[in-house]
Amino acid sequence: MRLIGIGVGPGDPELITVKAVRVLREADLVLVPVMAPGEQGRAESVVRAYTGKAERVVFALNDRGGVTERRAAAWDEAARRVLRAFAEGAGTVAFATIGDPNVYSTFTYLAQTVRDLSPGVEIESVPGITAMQDLAARSGTVLTEGTESLTLLPLTGGAHRFTKALRDSETVVAYKFGAVADEVLAAVKDAGRLDGAVYGARLGLEGEAVGPAGEIDGPVPYLSTLIVPGRRTTRGGML
Amino acid sequence: MRLIGIGVGPGDPELITVKAVRVLREADLVLVPVMAPGEQGRAESVVRAYTGKAERVVFALNDRGGVTERRAAAWDEAARRVLRAFAEGAGTVAFATIGDPNVYSTFTYLAQTVRDLSPGVEIESVPGITAMQDLAARSGTVLTEGTESLTLLPLTGGAHRFTKALRDSETVVAYKFGAVADEVLAAVKDAGRLDGAVYGARLGLEGEAVGPAGEIDGPVPYLSTLIVPGRRTTRGGML
Repeated sequence: MRLIGIGVGPGDPELITVKAVRVLREADLVLVPVMAPGEQGRAESVVRAYTGKAERVVFALNDRGGVTERRAAAWDEAARRVLRAFAEGAGTVAFATIGDPNVYSTFTYLAQTVRDLSPGVEIESVPGITAMQDLAARSGTVLTEGTESLTLLPLTGGAHRFTKALRDSETVVAYKFGAVADEVLAAVKDAGRLDGAVYGARLGLEGEAVGPAGEIDGPVPYLSTLIVPGRRTTRGGML
Repeated sequence: MRLIGIGVGPGDPELITVKAVRVLREADLVLVPVMAPGEQGRAESVVRAYTGKAERVVFALNDRGGVTERRAAAWDEAARRVLRAFAEGAGTVAFATIGDPNVYSTFTYLAQTVRDLSPGVEIESVPGITAMQDLAARSGTVLTEGTESLTLLPLTGGAHRFTKALRDSETVVAYKFGAVADEVLAAVKDAGRLDGAVYGARLGLEGEAVGPAGEIDGPVPYLSTLIVPGRRTTRGGML
């Protein structure tokens, strides 16, 4: 009994690994998280480019609060679906997740719930390209070079930690940038680091937005990513 | 004239994206960095799993100093090889790089040298799985969940910044861990964060080493990665 979290990348069906495609095709059951039963999610679109066997499980992906009853109930229900598959003879269940299954992923919660209910299940994961990496490539932004450090954080934790990261780290990447975009852009400007900063949303999908953070004019989608690159004066130090 | 940096992942030929495979196959020339002309590099092994057209360019990848004359000369020579290919009619030159072309990659320096010599060349990149993500998957380590932040830094910058990151960030990932392993492990222990910390080297290759950082006994390869995960007490907050 193996439950495998599969990173399917940021949304572009080509930005999935060869391994992820193989494991999705070999799995006895492929689960895809959706926000509503009748709605195809991003992970599902990628999965369906390679296999027809995607079964939806409803997650409250966009809840902005903490661990709500509703979310815990969703994890429990998904976990029970996984265990039922094993009881019915499945050897391998794959759970497809946008990005990477070990980076801010729903898979973490599902895996823990399954582990709690049935400690004998083996939990594995296959890495995937993150939105940060996709935005770097699409915007022509170098994330790190030489001895630079990179700090990644979601802005659901508040803009305060972001401002601190701007002082402490060469490159700063923020997820869920949309809700506090004004405050965050002001902080980037105050730090004199707007030059080279880029943002992006819906990467590789219809309605993609990618551009310089300094040209933002109006609201930004909630799930936007912001990259503030390190300041570079030379062509680099260490590789 | 397009120069495309292709992330081929950490070493396992399956951990390359579908897009990277396509672009490698479509490119007129595929360059792979090696440390010596007679030696197959990691990037080349992955490339050769999908196409025969890999041409070696010698880079001093493992130099531990700053920007040496020798390194700058290597970038210049590689850049001239790229420009010669364009002069001979190539439309697209791909440069394969381990990991991701925008994360501590030789590609950054090559791209800048090409841009300096010939501003008309379009520079693109295709993201790749990083060693951090591969180690997380292989060791069963969640990199980030909820509102946690992650700081990534190379230890060539010294262990001081690492100790600071241990205080400021939930998850801390260090590259090039081998050279200062004793000092760094002591810092992790002092911070009370050895529990759950893992290290890895030669991921997906012969001689792979992956294990708990607390069980390290003896020297660690220079190019090792260390993950110190955040402390988690619940089954998470925000997704």
